[in-house]
Amino acid sequence: MPIAKRVRELSPYVPGEQPKSKDVVKLNTNENPYPPSPECAKTLAGFDLDRLRKYPDPVFMALRKAIARLCKTTPEHVFVGNGSDEVLALAAKAFVEDGGALASLDPSYSLYKTIAAIRGVEWRGVPDLAAFDTKAAGAPELFLLTNPNAPTGAFIEPDEIAKFARRYKGILLVDEAYADFARSNAMPLAAAPRNRNTIVMRTFSKSYSLAGLRVGYCVGPVPLVEALYKIKDSYNVDAIAQAVALAAVKDQKWMKTNAAKIKKTRKAFTAELVKRGWDVIPSESNFVFARPPKQNAKEIFLALKKAGIFVRYFETPLTRDRLRITIGTDGEMVKLLAALP
Amino acid sequence: MPIAKRVRELSPYVPGEQPKSKDVVKLNTNENPYPPSPECAKTLAGFDLDRLRKYPDPVFMALRKAIARLCKTTPEHVFVGNGSDEVLALAAKAFVEDGGALASLDPSYSLYKTIAAIRGVEWRGVPDLAAFDTKAAGAPELFLLTNPNAPTGAFIEPDEIAKFARRYKGILLVDEAYADFARSNAMPLAAAPRNRNTIVMRTFSKSYSLAGLRVGYCVGPVPLVEALYKIKDSYNVDAIAQAVALAAVKDQKWMKTNAAKIKKTRKAFTAELVKRGWDVIPSESNFVFARPPKQNAKEIFLALKKAGIFVRYFETPLTRDRLRITIGTDGEMVKLLAALP
Repeated sequence: MPIAKRVRELSPYVPGEQPKSKDVVKLNTNENPYPPSPECAKTLAGFDLDRLRKYPDPVFMALRKAIARLCKTTPEHVFVGNGSDEVLALAAKAFVEDGGALASLDPSYSLYKTIAAIRGVEWRGVPDLAAFDTKAAGAPELFLLTNPNAPTGAFIEPDEIAKFARRYKGILLVDEAYADFARSNAMPLAAAPRNRNTIVMRTFSKSYSLAGLRVGYCVGPVPLVEALYKIKDSYNVDAIAQAVALAAVKDQKWMKTNAAKIKKTRKAFTAELVKRGWDVIPSESNFVFARPPKQNAKEIFLALKKAGIFVRYFETPLTRDRLRITIGTDGEMVKLLAALP
Repeated sequence: MPIAKRVRELSPYVPGEQPKSKDVVKLNTNENPYPPSPECAKTLAGFDLDRLRKYPDPVFMALRKAIARLCKTTPEHVFVGNGSDEVLALAAKAFVEDGGALASLDPSYSLYKTIAAIRGVEWRGVPDLAAFDTKAAGAPELFLLTNPNAPTGAFIEPDEIAKFARRYKGILLVDEAYADFARSNAMPLAAAPRNRNTIVMRTFSKSYSLAGLRVGYCVGPVPLVEALYKIKDSYNVDAIAQAVALAAVKDQKWMKTNAAKIKKTRKAFTAELVKRGWDVIPSESNFVFARPPKQNAKEIFLALKKAGIFVRYFETPLTRDRLRITIGTDGEMVKLLAALP
């Protein structure tokens, strides 16, 4: 057979639906309801097309410098990918031996399982950090920790992550895609001089409203970051994406204002759901994971979809009694609330 | 050790230098000296930034349709990557088993060796197609054939490629990065209904003057193309790149006019080098691979660099007596000729 066995047997990751209609209230893929910074628009409008003739900076130095400043570290600690997805796939290649394993919480970002399958290594899920025996023989070499977690929105305090990292011999990659919506984050651990095994990853897709641009980055110890550079595609981040992401990272005020609005909407929306008898996991993210009081979650999901309101439903034993609902604008949440049974 | 053995031992691919100075005559990375289509500029200027809030089309359907029309096939035969680099890396994952091997001509695009090393499989080089025993036990499962070849510029006729594909049990990926500068190409093989093992790959980096955009694509049998979709990152081509590449592919006239200019310059430049006693491999590409009559190639390379003229030099036994010189504008070639010893 010309297709490798591992690929033939693979169940691909299924991303949330991207409906074509503009009338859909889209609360299914944790996108930001507010537009990107006007500085991004300026950058795009002023982009000299002739620059595209040439290959982009393979190591995106201008963007790295800005990220390093933001994260209180230096550029050699910073890696940038074609979305966080690429960083994750490269980490699975760089930090897991053939025949090894990677771990994550379960439930967590369902892509991790697919990444392990594509890499051809085992995936192990644990319900919480305490349940993971860091010293066991054959313990997975890479732990992917989404914090705040998805789809739950639950948050682990950085102190607890630091303790976990200290007792773990492998590489801990903290996926902080939603950190700008949380009360705290683990970036200081990644930038600490004595850190030897903790990588913190961020994305421009959520808080910066740039999901369509595909830029993610991570900060970590130099030897680990260097390993990612060694195995990345030569020019993995295009010239426009480098420039637009740089504009976004420089406009922190814009991003923070939007994140604050989303947090405010999250609070009001959560309170309303609770008032209606829903169980809502306290969320530090731009979505909530909520269980209806009596009705079947899947039925609500399907009824909402019919009504042109998209939320996310994961049909697995650990998640099938809840809906994951992205926090949109206040107006979008009102529409959703009106449509709920 | 936390870094996987394969990665620790890896020699990374070294791309051609990207000098910061604008005064450099840059003939070292096969970039196009002419700007991208004005339609690309229009697309960029008119791009609605709010689209970046959302994830891009994960399967880039509008772009695929345009590529399918161009290649006289249907969209399910088309895959698009974050540059051809990504397509190559995915092919090595999809079509080579663990412990398997991939092959290419030697010399050829030196990235192939790195791709095999990152994938953790063996790379085998052969001097020509005839030297590759397609039926041998343990024959590599994937053959990466650059045509026109790099760094030589030499061309293999499509008929010969078709014969090779028929007797080969593995997957043949024809890397046609430079096909728009050649007298013919193998795309009809990829789009043929009875094709079971031939994939033809193209890029927007060379003939479309979009190296900075990172878009490459391939056409092949549906089961093979589907395998690539299964293992790609969820959103591997960003929304802007999809839109700009679509504009470029629709403006065939612009691309063909520039390619014709480059071929004309190539002819005149080759004639001049030959007149001066250089040995030039007949090139069907946007570069020539040329051996100076007496002088040392490396010394010329270094002297040119000092003079602000960048060409490419590969210090391997098969390539060290030649320079690979990208065809620029007529003016750039005059400057280079004036600086040669």
